[in-house]
Amino acid sequence: MSEQIGKQSLRFSDPPYIVSSSSVVGTKEGEGPLGKLFDVIGEDDTFGSDNWEAAESALQKKAMELVIDKAGICPEDIRYLFAGDLLGQSVASSFALQSFGIPLFGLYGACSTAGLALSLAAMTVSAGYADLAAAVTSSHFASAEKQFRFPLEYANQRPLSTTWTVTGSGAFLLAGKRKLEELTGRNSPEKIYVEDQSEPAGTQWTREYRVKISGVTTGKILDYGVRDSMNMGAAMAPAAKDVIEAHLKDFGRSAGDYDKIITGDLGGIGREILIDLLREKNIDIAGNHTDCGLEIFDNEKQGTGSGGSGCGCSAVTLSAHFLPMLRSGKLKRILFVPTGALLSKISFNEGENVPGIAHAVVLESDRE
Amino acid sequence: MSEQIGKQSLRFSDPPYIVSSSSVVGTKEGEGPLGKLFDVIGEDDTFGSDNWEAAESALQKKAMELVIDKAGICPEDIRYLFAGDLLGQSVASSFALQSFGIPLFGLYGACSTAGLALSLAAMTVSAGYADLAAAVTSSHFASAEKQFRFPLEYANQRPLSTTWTVTGSGAFLLAGKRKLEELTGRNSPEKIYVEDQSEPAGTQWTREYRVKISGVTTGKILDYGVRDSMNMGAAMAPAAKDVIEAHLKDFGRSAGDYDKIITGDLGGIGREILIDLLREKNIDIAGNHTDCGLEIFDNEKQGTGSGGSGCGCSAVTLSAHFLPMLRSGKLKRILFVPTGALLSKISFNEGENVPGIAHAVVLESDRE
Repeated sequence: MSEQIGKQSLRFSDPPYIVSSSSVVGTKEGEGPLGKLFDVIGEDDTFGSDNWEAAESALQKKAMELVIDKAGICPEDIRYLFAGDLLGQSVASSFALQSFGIPLFGLYGACSTAGLALSLAAMTVSAGYADLAAAVTSSHFASAEKQFRFPLEYANQRPLSTTWTVTGSGAFLLAGKRKLEELTGRNSPEKIYVEDQSEPAGTQWTREYRVKISGVTTGKILDYGVRDSMNMGAAMAPAAKDVIEAHLKDFGRSAGDYDKIITGDLGGIGREILIDLLREKNIDIAGNHTDCGLEIFDNEKQGTGSGGSGCGCSAVTLSAHFLPMLRSGKLKRILFVPTGALLSKISFNEGENVPGIAHAVVLESDRE
Repeated sequence: MSEQIGKQSLRFSDPPYIVSSSSVVGTKEGEGPLGKLFDVIGEDDTFGSDNWEAAESALQKKAMELVIDKAGICPEDIRYLFAGDLLGQSVASSFALQSFGIPLFGLYGACSTAGLALSLAAMTVSAGYADLAAAVTSSHFASAEKQFRFPLEYANQRPLSTTWTVTGSGAFLLAGKRKLEELTGRNSPEKIYVEDQSEPAGTQWTREYRVKISGVTTGKILDYGVRDSMNMGAAMAPAAKDVIEAHLKDFGRSAGDYDKIITGDLGGIGREILIDLLREKNIDIAGNHTDCGLEIFDNEKQGTGSGGSGCGCSAVTLSAHFLPMLRSGKLKRILFVPTGALLSKISFNEGENVPGIAHAVVLESDRE
């Protein structure tokens, strides 16, 4: 029962399901187009903390608490946790997660970490290594600016190509089908009803489908020679192109087999490059592509440059925006492709390029 | 065929085998007690590079090249790569690994990353997700001092409790039993003979056994309130204690069931604390415990404080010192427990504690 397909993909014979997910964001994200969909919007971006790193830990901790509460379980029910953030030595995760006491696999994939964490958590659950596994990632605008560019107090100008790191954390709880049924006490998806969060009125009760991770394609490091830390979209687009192309080849699918192909944080400039690069390979995703960084902010109104970014960006947008559309049946199958730019302040100052990496995750609803 | 045992362990029903391993180290490691055992000792610690971060990438790249060469395969035969280092945003790995073009899971577990990478690679191979997977980690004394403490040029004094970051990279190639037999063309371990690297004379030909990873125990973050970045052993010992205790409980074993219990880089001070903490739990490992950080340097002669550290330390010591002893049959079963201290320069400067984490990997020879 090998689940390997093609050169770098897995198709799960026993796919894990998403039991619950959560999204915690900052004020700017709350003011954006998806504002009404997030679980928690902080009153300010400190989340009650003394410094930006601790603020990021606080929001990641909150996302974990929520995803656990929503599933009606205890932290000790979660066998393994897959987590990461953007800070050096992943300190936001280290200080956010210790109180949960869950065995931890620490990850680093820059802004692609949501894809990395969901991939490994799905692989772990599908292999029978865990009944329940969690994936959580975070980013914070202020801690990321300080980490990669300049502290906010310096008040540097930002070119239009810059992306705006999302202050946010998204968490996901994965389980095998049997465990999901045990948790929900329901055997068929038709019996599950919830409040439709995608309707702002919030009063409609609609059918809810289960959402599973049916496959993953793990990306490689791609370096097209971009050296501009103020243009991350261009640095990451080649890796997104590479993993999407590999994914479609491995699965024998075309772009049209997905209701949406959703990159993590390419922004406007990265999106254009991605679409052009894929066209050179005779793959046209223009009609069904979107980018979490373009969904989360109104760039013109909010002054967020080319779009949102950070490993919180794709996580909260998936949790608050796309998962409800899969649950309601509005979307049947999506390809979720978080994208990461591999740089540090030191590598940038030493004149190194900014290579990219991206990981693709197939999410499908049980809708027939 | 659930492979979960206890609260946080896995026992593989189809355990992966170590096809090959490699070790590349710096000059100081070459002058230490294990000097003759390493595959490559650099002429100087720059490895032909202009800066310390690039030097670390160069040695990680060399370790990958060697592990591939030794197995007689091509990089494209490796389906997945699990890798990490100590630098912010794992840049040593990003720049070391891109030329191999292998789908990459980026990891961060501080100095425990060798345990993290071996665990996930073993899980991936055992689940049938990959025929061949590689795990590689690295650290470099000069890049780590600059990253976590002071640049070498500052010439700060080092207290005796300090550990000395190993300049080194170790890589491991894992395969299922069928793939291993395909690669070696041999069906029984008795037919395999190699030069015994553990004998300095290097001329003895001895029987070689296969080595498998039969189980893993994934650790939690533990924080005992240590804040001294010059005493990492004390920060990591509680996590090592926790994962060893959990491992023995999950597997229903006692310390005596292991020929050796080998921590990553606790050094002399951390070792004492670990032994004391476990004694409080009625577990006595004093007789069969050792620490890679104590094996790799002669602390008195080499001025390396409490011992070696870094996620290269445990990796190269396993590859060059303990794996040959498992292959020759001198050791039958070991518990390999790389230990990590979760801090960054920023978290340290902000006065945060230094929590620890450790991951345990069971390595066994096929010796009856």
